[in-house]
Amino acid sequence: MKLVRYGKPGSEKPGLIDADGKIRDLSAHVADWKGDALSPQSLARIAALAPASLPEVTGNPRLGSCVAQPGNFIAVGLNYADHAAESNLPVPKEPVLFNKAPSCVVGPYDDVVIPRGSEKTDWEVELAIIIGSRASYVEEKDALSYVAGYAVCNDVSERAYQIERSGQWMKGKGCPTFGPLGPWLVTPDEVGDVQNLSMWLDVDGERVQTGSTKTMIFGVAHIVHYISQFLILEPGDVITTGTPPGVGMGMKPPRYLKPGNVMTLGIEKLGDQRQTTVAWSA
Amino acid sequence: MKLVRYGKPGSEKPGLIDADGKIRDLSAHVADWKGDALSPQSLARIAALAPASLPEVTGNPRLGSCVAQPGNFIAVGLNYADHAAESNLPVPKEPVLFNKAPSCVVGPYDDVVIPRGSEKTDWEVELAIIIGSRASYVEEKDALSYVAGYAVCNDVSERAYQIERSGQWMKGKGCPTFGPLGPWLVTPDEVGDVQNLSMWLDVDGERVQTGSTKTMIFGVAHIVHYISQFLILEPGDVITTGTPPGVGMGMKPPRYLKPGNVMTLGIEKLGDQRQTTVAWSA
Repeated sequence: MKLVRYGKPGSEKPGLIDADGKIRDLSAHVADWKGDALSPQSLARIAALAPASLPEVTGNPRLGSCVAQPGNFIAVGLNYADHAAESNLPVPKEPVLFNKAPSCVVGPYDDVVIPRGSEKTDWEVELAIIIGSRASYVEEKDALSYVAGYAVCNDVSERAYQIERSGQWMKGKGCPTFGPLGPWLVTPDEVGDVQNLSMWLDVDGERVQTGSTKTMIFGVAHIVHYISQFLILEPGDVITTGTPPGVGMGMKPPRYLKPGNVMTLGIEKLGDQRQTTVAWSA
Repeated sequence: MKLVRYGKPGSEKPGLIDADGKIRDLSAHVADWKGDALSPQSLARIAALAPASLPEVTGNPRLGSCVAQPGNFIAVGLNYADHAAESNLPVPKEPVLFNKAPSCVVGPYDDVVIPRGSEKTDWEVELAIIIGSRASYVEEKDALSYVAGYAVCNDVSERAYQIERSGQWMKGKGCPTFGPLGPWLVTPDEVGDVQNLSMWLDVDGERVQTGSTKTMIFGVAHIVHYISQFLILEPGDVITTGTPPGVGMGMKPPRYLKPGNVMTLGIEKLGDQRQTTVAWSA
């Protein structure tokens, strides 16, 4: 299944994408894509519905983030060996984890706001994991059963805030609009081998990132297992899993986003995103 | 006002502490202490109620965390000059920020679980700020108006996870039960000068931490202002503001918690906590 949230910011409704690419409304069956609505039991119940029996959503509504604002929005850093190299950082021995503020989640086509005074806003195409079941001390062999699905995430990053402002990366990772997520949550049965998906990101039509989830240092199962050793993952939590080479910070000279740039990005089987960058205004 | 949540874990009810120290039930007036229930308008409405008119809670119920699981649980590191020195780290030029997993919040008298395999679990008495209004790009002069109140927080920390596991402190800060919060949210009118409160923590009756909020490097108003430059703070969010000297990691030799230790801690005007440490079990 491809699950979506559609409508105006803050009042999105849950839906799914049918075989013809149309949105079908699920409001009568689930309140929102968050928490226990993402459990295996809930998703099995939705999968048993005939899409043609659901109301078709007409018009061309905005798509919101494919899941509601999560409790935890956790990111894995330096999880592609080539990206670690372009960042002049060693390949980590264990996953590097940091947080994105949950409030930074936005829709896949929403504008991305350059923070006030920012000069180093950067892009990162990433595979996001959406958690379906509470996970604490999970074994790696069982970890994928805790996953509700996958989505594209742009892990937008302000490099000066991340690196030059007295330690800990979270300062540059959770600015408002820094978490486009979607267009869809794709359930694992439709994704197949999650460790063999091509991914890309263009800025103003120029290809800057190209990669594949097969070059991740730590794969999805290990990441879910690993994080669950340190904290409780809850249904609806989002984990974004690191970016392949080609971020602006790694270019010579570095290249950062200005208002009016257009980022397009996508991951095989998970759909595409498009964001225009805009200047901050009060 | 002193606001509380009482009852079993996961089904706490909101209340307040009256002038005689009794819990008065507020279930008829507010759903829970979270989100917009902590807004200035909501708290003004509660303050206008006569406590004697509210149902008295009898028995001796458990106190939960004084606010529900927050969206953001953010911590400030190294915010007391003496603590930075005992940690062998320089005084930061700007606040050091990291995240605690929201799911680690527990009641003030609940057990603290030593994580599986942990050998370096440590204590930190801290002043926590509870946010009452959405805060983005807030000026320092206005920042205190975004604060719903204050509470005691034990920023329990696993030092190996925090420091020895491939970077970023959050790994050692959000383990289950690592965020005792309460017993009360005390509104600013009852706290007075928040930058002049004495604080202390004992382990098994021995005083190990002594300090005062007057030796914070970055005060409450600056912290709220500062964080709001990087992310959106929302009502119910919790910011814990750093610890004075006396943590186990800073002792020679270092001293860490074992199952069966008892931590008691408190801050002037904000009440006391008491936690027993227990071993992890599946």
